[in-house]
Amino acid sequence: MSFAIIAPGKDVTEWIDLFQEMDDSLSIQVYPDLRDKESIEAVLVWKHPQGILKELPNLKLICSMGAGVDHILSDPQLPENIPITRIVDDKLTFSMTNYVVTAVLFHHRQIPKYLAYKSEHMWDMREPEVPVTIGVMGTGALGSDVLDKLSYLGFNVIGYGRSRKKEFGFPYYSGDELESFLSKVNVLVCLLPLTPDTEDILNLSFFEKCQRGTYLINVARGNHLVEADLLLAIEKGFISGAFLDVYREEPLPKDHPFWDHPKIMLTPHIASVTNPAAAAPQIYKNYENMKKNLPLVNEIKMSQGY
Amino acid sequence: MSFAIIAPGKDVTEWIDLFQEMDDSLSIQVYPDLRDKESIEAVLVWKHPQGILKELPNLKLICSMGAGVDHILSDPQLPENIPITRIVDDKLTFSMTNYVVTAVLFHHRQIPKYLAYKSEHMWDMREPEVPVTIGVMGTGALGSDVLDKLSYLGFNVIGYGRSRKKEFGFPYYSGDELESFLSKVNVLVCLLPLTPDTEDILNLSFFEKCQRGTYLINVARGNHLVEADLLLAIEKGFISGAFLDVYREEPLPKDHPFWDHPKIMLTPHIASVTNPAAAAPQIYKNYENMKKNLPLVNEIKMSQGY
Repeated sequence: MSFAIIAPGKDVTEWIDLFQEMDDSLSIQVYPDLRDKESIEAVLVWKHPQGILKELPNLKLICSMGAGVDHILSDPQLPENIPITRIVDDKLTFSMTNYVVTAVLFHHRQIPKYLAYKSEHMWDMREPEVPVTIGVMGTGALGSDVLDKLSYLGFNVIGYGRSRKKEFGFPYYSGDELESFLSKVNVLVCLLPLTPDTEDILNLSFFEKCQRGTYLINVARGNHLVEADLLLAIEKGFISGAFLDVYREEPLPKDHPFWDHPKIMLTPHIASVTNPAAAAPQIYKNYENMKKNLPLVNEIKMSQGY
Repeated sequence: MSFAIIAPGKDVTEWIDLFQEMDDSLSIQVYPDLRDKESIEAVLVWKHPQGILKELPNLKLICSMGAGVDHILSDPQLPENIPITRIVDDKLTFSMTNYVVTAVLFHHRQIPKYLAYKSEHMWDMREPEVPVTIGVMGTGALGSDVLDKLSYLGFNVIGYGRSRKKEFGFPYYSGDELESFLSKVNVLVCLLPLTPDTEDILNLSFFEKCQRGTYLINVARGNHLVEADLLLAIEKGFISGAFLDVYREEPLPKDHPFWDHPKIMLTPHIASVTNPAAAAPQIYKNYENMKKNLPLVNEIKMSQGY
């Protein structure tokens, strides 16, 4: 009976150390050196090579190394009926929320304008704040926390999610109310899960429905955004600028037009990085629960695709 | 009986309109055109010419146009025993707090680093966050709100004020505990009132007591900071950088060394700008209370100098 880590290109030393501190009898195989595929009952994965999970005949548990599971579900040869878990942790939420708050304030308090004034030695006190109403698409653990924190800072916030929520503490739109939602906000935060329904959702026809000059913050997945459409939407004035952490191809190619775009701020997919020390215990707990046939923590609902 | 506005260089049209909407019988004189000094019983002032208040024989109330009153108290010919009020308003607090949060996140989430990566087309995911413990000097209405909001965002915060506070919701240092306070924080926010005790407080000997590499945020008054000492403290590594809104001379002179300093971010005294629509009613209320001998709102305690 064995556990495997399949995360090509990642340094997983810290994960191995953490698991062995918790259980020094645990046998860990690390991709690409999977010596004994038959013995593997649980895997910890990040962007695994497609098809490899199908080669593990006794697999009983798939754990994502992050908050998202789209990198698992996108495998067309994913074995069926094996439970999948994701990571939910306070540090991940702290980082994601503060990244979004940083992006909102970067726009609201006009960091690019004041950087330009600084380089021009210019003193101009006019219009120090851009008035904002912030809409958050995706109202799970992360989106709800972003709404809560921005609201506590005194901002007007609105949520949008797939289904009607009762007793949600903020104005909330769902399903086919997308246009009403977009008409009320001028800063848009994408925190949706990536599913076939949400892929490419941020496209030109979507941007046309936004309030003119809406500011876009994408911290979900690169495949939510049709990148050429964002460039066009900025050119046409539908979107005034964007603060992006994720891209269709990562690392972002050296010649990508986003790099030098004056209205787009970029970071290299660092909004919220899984902290192994916080996440390893919940993964090990699921490994134990799987062996004992107990309910798993943070298991995803396959019917919703996330 | 008359009311005067003395704010050289400021456009006060909006203030006049607001007062006349509230009371169209109100006689308002505007500096420099003070036609009838004997009739003036109340003044609204911002950086008045020193000595002018002494020329008003029937003055009974001095209202500051902002949150600070140092510009009033610094007049050596200030007439004695006349009540002074300042402005406290929610919008002022919202702006000040969000400015400080912007500055903290600018440092914590390393906006300058990611701007440099962007211009170099560089993808580097390492060390996305600078760990911070934030110390706020000055724990009045503004400082307390900053502590509350940063704490709600999940940050470690500590306050420092002139006197012992009971039942303060955060770790709190006062009086001669400054060195202990400084040893525990690596982001320092100055929100002190400007008094003879606090003028020049941010000097080289102060910076030497800070944790090495502390980040400075000054949103109080330019005269809190010995500007040449900040440059030296950055050079010596006591201070890693600064986010400044206020200066000893404003507008900041065109040839000031701060403009081109790579580790200093500047804004032109816009952290929190008095909103006449929010402030005029409390000033008019104090004018009425003064006439009726009722207690004033937001009157300063002269014994503390703020």
